[in-house]
Amino acid sequence: MTSSSLHVTGFALVVSGLGMALSALVDLLTVPDDLGPLTVGALVSGGVGAVLWWFTRPRVRSTPATAFVTVTLAWAVLGVAGAIPFWVAGTFAHWDDAIFETVSGFTATGATVLSPIEGTGQGLLFWRSLTQWLGGIGVVVLALSVLPHFGVGGLSLLAAEAPGPEAERLAPRVQSTAKLLLRVYVLITGLVIAGLLGGGLSIYDAATHAFTAVSTGGFSPYDASIAHFDSLWVEGVLIAGMLAGAINFALHWRVFTGRGPSVYWRSSEARAFGLLVIASTAFVTILVAGDLGWAEGLRESAFQVVSVVTTTGFATADFTRWAAAAQLVLVALMISGSMTGSTSGALKVMRVQVVSRVALRHVRRALAPRGVFVIRHDGRAVDEEVVGRVVALVQAYIVMVVAGMLAVTMLGSPIDEALGAVATSIGGVGPGLGRAGPAGNFLVFTRPARAVLVVLMIVGRLEVFPVLLTAAVAWRGVRDGTRHRVRHVVDRLRLLR
Amino acid sequence: MTSSSLHVTGFALVVSGLGMALSALVDLLTVPDDLGPLTVGALVSGGVGAVLWWFTRPRVRSTPATAFVTVTLAWAVLGVAGAIPFWVAGTFAHWDDAIFETVSGFTATGATVLSPIEGTGQGLLFWRSLTQWLGGIGVVVLALSVLPHFGVGGLSLLAAEAPGPEAERLAPRVQSTAKLLLRVYVLITGLVIAGLLGGGLSIYDAATHAFTAVSTGGFSPYDASIAHFDSLWVEGVLIAGMLAGAINFALHWRVFTGRGPSVYWRSSEARAFGLLVIASTAFVTILVAGDLGWAEGLRESAFQVVSVVTTTGFATADFTRWAAAAQLVLVALMISGSMTGSTSGALKVMRVQVVSRVALRHVRRALAPRGVFVIRHDGRAVDEEVVGRVVALVQAYIVMVVAGMLAVTMLGSPIDEALGAVATSIGGVGPGLGRAGPAGNFLVFTRPARAVLVVLMIVGRLEVFPVLLTAAVAWRGVRDGTRHRVRHVVDRLRLLR
Repeated sequence: MTSSSLHVTGFALVVSGLGMALSALVDLLTVPDDLGPLTVGALVSGGVGAVLWWFTRPRVRSTPATAFVTVTLAWAVLGVAGAIPFWVAGTFAHWDDAIFETVSGFTATGATVLSPIEGTGQGLLFWRSLTQWLGGIGVVVLALSVLPHFGVGGLSLLAAEAPGPEAERLAPRVQSTAKLLLRVYVLITGLVIAGLLGGGLSIYDAATHAFTAVSTGGFSPYDASIAHFDSLWVEGVLIAGMLAGAINFALHWRVFTGRGPSVYWRSSEARAFGLLVIASTAFVTILVAGDLGWAEGLRESAFQVVSVVTTTGFATADFTRWAAAAQLVLVALMISGSMTGSTSGALKVMRVQVVSRVALRHVRRALAPRGVFVIRHDGRAVDEEVVGRVVALVQAYIVMVVAGMLAVTMLGSPIDEALGAVATSIGGVGPGLGRAGPAGNFLVFTRPARAVLVVLMIVGRLEVFPVLLTAAVAWRGVRDGTRHRVRHVVDRLRLLR
Repeated sequence: MTSSSLHVTGFALVVSGLGMALSALVDLLTVPDDLGPLTVGALVSGGVGAVLWWFTRPRVRSTPATAFVTVTLAWAVLGVAGAIPFWVAGTFAHWDDAIFETVSGFTATGATVLSPIEGTGQGLLFWRSLTQWLGGIGVVVLALSVLPHFGVGGLSLLAAEAPGPEAERLAPRVQSTAKLLLRVYVLITGLVIAGLLGGGLSIYDAATHAFTAVSTGGFSPYDASIAHFDSLWVEGVLIAGMLAGAINFALHWRVFTGRGPSVYWRSSEARAFGLLVIASTAFVTILVAGDLGWAEGLRESAFQVVSVVTTTGFATADFTRWAAAAQLVLVALMISGSMTGSTSGALKVMRVQVVSRVALRHVRRALAPRGVFVIRHDGRAVDEEVVGRVVALVQAYIVMVVAGMLAVTMLGSPIDEALGAVATSIGGVGPGLGRAGPAGNFLVFTRPARAVLVVLMIVGRLEVFPVLLTAAVAWRGVRDGTRHRVRHVVDRLRLLR
């Protein structure tokens, strides 16, 4: 627990406090019934955060281990601090439900235990959507400006793809990069709000849905999610918003600074992502067209595929009633996710590309044992060190899915619902399979199973290794601490002899 | 299609013909009702095999590509030739069912579409068990004597584990190694037969079950499988037989040549395998003890865990009625499998060990970015080339499982049954989940879905890459052939101008 970790966590708590204050303001302007809970939350979170931030100092250089522990700590603490208004308001039946909902918010997952949603006040629902918007930009900043300094995260690959050696960071300093990214994020969010207002939505509906579209979070203040509006226009705007959130923000930045939209098509990951969306939509449309007809089938498939592959989780249809193969495609998309450096969760397309090339290389090597095969991405050779890191992450992710399924089935769920819940939680999507689908909620899981899912949400959002590493550091600490205490006792006993 | 490939395939067909002749003899000695079908099969398979074998010549040196195409060809051709007696006898409703059953035999899988089993003659059921015994030793010979010459298969790792550089092969020539392995196999089979006779089984029952235990195949001439005998002694002997089949035969050979049983415990893979069996049994016992009581729970868990982890598939209990977590443990065991160089299917424990160490290395690297971490196995460093190969195989295996699930759900199955069927087929286990569990059979899948499962059985048995490579070679052939023909037509057109 270094000073840097506490400093960053303090900053996150202050931002969270400001968010609650904003939500209180919104509450005041709509139906003022959550003013108390939100004010208490803002004061506690903002107050504790300010104290932490004030009395600690960031180190100029820190190690990857520190960075990893810091982000794990920050997300875990936010999951507790953000739950304060729900506790004060008594929104949930159990104390841990509020943490589930808040972690699902800050990790931009979107799985919910709030039922019915529409019984809750507009201020609290605004806060619920805002947690996703804050968590979404938090992850992008992390992926594109903090982690590359430690040689971790998917960005080592983006570096290989960039035109010159200096292009690894968008701006020379971390803070400046973060500000650039925040500007892109606010701009996209503004465009989506404008689009939704154009579809006739109230400013409240437009803002809350824009927040959770661009952050690929997926919370909606309505029980029926996007089906509530039943509007092709709204669905189109949200598809655009989800896709914008799921594209690498470094590409957005280059386009906004005048390099033209061809930037997108020159990225191999973006091309693969586009192909994945189109192919999956076509495939699912064919599978559901028999029941829904082609027009309705295409509309529902397109929205659901984009919602799932971007790891948002908005719903216009209950896909748990679709053919098993269509559901399995959605589970596969839950595991692949969208682009690196975006608000999307799960593995990311670039990693899937790299591991596929690794497998393909083995076949080519077997055909030509003396050949030398280099993994390329966007026409450039990828360092074997980076390849190994990607492969290790994919493996660890799969291990987490299997271990999670084992835990959730042990805690009382059938296999298909466990698969859906684990894939959707670690991938940050939202709805799962079976009774936890778009028309249901996560109350069907037992409380211990939901605790496992909360951990998986953070594990997935931070791309596994930070959490594993924090666990390793904590374990070392406990072990060394125990050793120290044991030695102390042994020394005492020696003195007594 | 080289001369070597046809030579080896011819040899396999001759062996298959001899096996059918032996089955005809057994039929004659018991209830002679399958004499015709088995004789026809023996003549066709043996005759075609003898012709192929006689008129082709093996090359002294062949490439990995040739070896891969050869084994794929041999297993596919055996799946057709071995089905001849079933066709002639009219055992199955569809022609492809006979191929399903035969491929399930030669790949030592044990999934069945024969229902009821006990309505079939004893000669054909003997042949059905014998296909597994032949397929079992075929794979061991392949893994321990043929493939290492091409630097492929899990044996590159065994080489690292062996005491001296000359120990990579057990004997200087492939043929001699194969003979040694066959001797070990026959010896173990004989011991299991003796053990079963000691339990009061008829020589017919003892032989057919010993064949399918040691080959980790799992066919039984009884509909109730091993529950038919309801004997603790029989279960104990079969557990020993399955474990013997699932341990690396190179270790058996060293023990039989007088190095003492400590050979097993000095192998890291054997220790991990032992731990896996004990831990899984304990875990499953705890999960089922509530319903079955501790004694019965332990008995059923131990048998079922060994049956599944060795990829045999014998049944004493219908595990599809167990808790979901217990079923998921069994699915995980279906994917891990037992030791390299054994008759067991699936990924193998050694590969799981290597990929776990690769993932762990990433965590350690992140903690100490400048450290050098070498993957070790049995205390020796493993070549990074070999590590990469193992990782690629594990990935390809997972891709096959996902693609298989997608195909099987598209062809009409629910997700959990598709998962069970794909994991059990590619892993060579036998029973799946849901209606395709130990008490059911694979007729619940549509015929196209069963065709997919047949392909997966061969893919899994040959450890994925040989089949992928054969597909790649075939694709190249078709492409080049098409190009050639297109060029030919273009040239003609030019001449016409």
